[in-house]
Amino acid sequence: MPQLNRQILLVSRPKGPASVDNFRLVETPLAPLADGEVRVRNHYLSLDPYMRGRMNDAKSYAVPQPLNEVMIGGTVGEVVESRNASFAVGDHVVGTLGWQEFGTSDGVGLRKVDAANVPLSAYLGAVGMPGVTAWYGLNRIIAPQAGQTVVVSAASGAVGGVVGQLAKLAGCRAVGIAGGDEKCRYVTDTLGFDACVDYKAGNLWRDLKAATPDGVDGYFENVGGDMLDATLDRMNEFGRIALCGMIAGYDGEPVPLKQPALILRQRLLVQGFIVTEHLDLWPQALAELGGLVAQKKLIYRETIAQGLENAPEAFLGLLKGRNFGKQLVKLI
Amino acid sequence: MPQLNRQILLVSRPKGPASVDNFRLVETPLAPLADGEVRVRNHYLSLDPYMRGRMNDAKSYAVPQPLNEVMIGGTVGEVVESRNASFAVGDHVVGTLGWQEFGTSDGVGLRKVDAANVPLSAYLGAVGMPGVTAWYGLNRIIAPQAGQTVVVSAASGAVGGVVGQLAKLAGCRAVGIAGGDEKCRYVTDTLGFDACVDYKAGNLWRDLKAATPDGVDGYFENVGGDMLDATLDRMNEFGRIALCGMIAGYDGEPVPLKQPALILRQRLLVQGFIVTEHLDLWPQALAELGGLVAQKKLIYRETIAQGLENAPEAFLGLLKGRNFGKQLVKLI
Repeated sequence: MPQLNRQILLVSRPKGPASVDNFRLVETPLAPLADGEVRVRNHYLSLDPYMRGRMNDAKSYAVPQPLNEVMIGGTVGEVVESRNASFAVGDHVVGTLGWQEFGTSDGVGLRKVDAANVPLSAYLGAVGMPGVTAWYGLNRIIAPQAGQTVVVSAASGAVGGVVGQLAKLAGCRAVGIAGGDEKCRYVTDTLGFDACVDYKAGNLWRDLKAATPDGVDGYFENVGGDMLDATLDRMNEFGRIALCGMIAGYDGEPVPLKQPALILRQRLLVQGFIVTEHLDLWPQALAELGGLVAQKKLIYRETIAQGLENAPEAFLGLLKGRNFGKQLVKLI
Repeated sequence: MPQLNRQILLVSRPKGPASVDNFRLVETPLAPLADGEVRVRNHYLSLDPYMRGRMNDAKSYAVPQPLNEVMIGGTVGEVVESRNASFAVGDHVVGTLGWQEFGTSDGVGLRKVDAANVPLSAYLGAVGMPGVTAWYGLNRIIAPQAGQTVVVSAASGAVGGVVGQLAKLAGCRAVGIAGGDEKCRYVTDTLGFDACVDYKAGNLWRDLKAATPDGVDGYFENVGGDMLDATLDRMNEFGRIALCGMIAGYDGEPVPLKQPALILRQRLLVQGFIVTEHLDLWPQALAELGGLVAQKKLIYRETIAQGLENAPEAFLGLLKGRNFGKQLVKLI
């Protein structure tokens, strides 16, 4: 067994855009396990936009990430040592063990998963938090009916891709918004969306209008800013907007909403949510998503950075949209 | 019987602020009643902010008010002639007969009311559309629990006054926003709100914070603009915002929302509504409101302009907040 753990700490809070200087890689001796504890060798670390919010010391979903502690993050790995009767060496587990190679846990929040029918990394994506996020916002807030139009931003991402595929399975017209021709082609040709608007092409409002000839009934928002303004302008009466991410405002000044009066004029429902506050629905969602992945009815793409030391740079790239599909860090 | 009806038509659409020039008073001969029709002498005309939206030829709640036709508006009056078996001369009726002294109706949308226990004008206010608007937004969107804080803008108005009084009856802390010291004193001393913030005093954000020490759980929005920004900044997690009016944006350019990301960060629900789309709930709401008015548990104030010819000026005053309580025009 190795004696040292490698970890990445948050050592300062961003003023403006986040940078690699906000993080530090440290080596820490591995302490012996206490009774009831389990040691996990993390195979994959999940990088997610919500982490940017945790870096601020301000009103956010939850308490801020403390300074000089291991960055929070979802992980999937293998039990390598156990003093907990519920976990055996060799078990594959999903948890929130953070940006480090080895995680120690008392077992709370650790979930054993089947690595035979679903690839291990999928438990951080389509069959993990991103998938459940898509499932919740689509089914519980947007609640689309067959024939309606559902739009999702960051459509080639881990959440957005699932939103559109679930919308298609529900009989909807699925329209994505993504950055660049390559991502848009992936969204339509591989994921099967009906249309995808390339926001980097510079004609977001015009192109979105063309892609939504019958207006928009449901919008799943991962980005905010101009995309929210443009889609709000296309909303049909009684439309629903699930606010899942407002990444456009994570760095620096708040990004205003241009036409809030449309929420009234179109009698819209706008609801913010965070999926970890709806844990009661996770078993149902994960069962559905796992089944769809195993049947190849739900597909996804991953961008994998190699090695813990590359996590900060990969995370900053994620915030800038450089990833293509679910952003992971492979740790082993 | 008089031979002439006096009516006010919309003759042009505002470019920027509405003005009296958008209206014209005309005299029109009264046509004989057809079979099934009823003639009503209107006693009161209701003036309401939604009318400003109807003056535009743009996306709004409903079809725009057609040019060169009688302005739409709620009325209460007395049947003076009837060829409809459901209505007798002397019946008091509420309807939407518009800005005119005499209205002719086939009876659809006309509702007989009891003028003995409730003053006739109240059917245009606390026991009419404004009251039901307050009831719906508070009970069906905000759904406050005892001990929570409910804020309402335009608190001395026909809708806002009812919102706060119903919130108090539900065991909440009720905080109003109103313009000027006199209106604020009325809101606290007469209507019984716990606090009222005078937005004209120039310290809206600071004063609202002081008036809501435990944050805000429900916000009933009649105004928009700075009030929405300020209250959004005070919302507690899982708060609800009922969007009923965005009067701040009726004239001219859209007013942006400064910090839409707070909807996500606080996991808020924001819902626009228009009460005439929920007619199924009117009987229940009107019964409750009528009972409260008859028992003097729900009080209200009226600003009454005299004579149809003064309706346009009174309407413009309403848009500028010059009224104090429900704005009516007395026609007889």
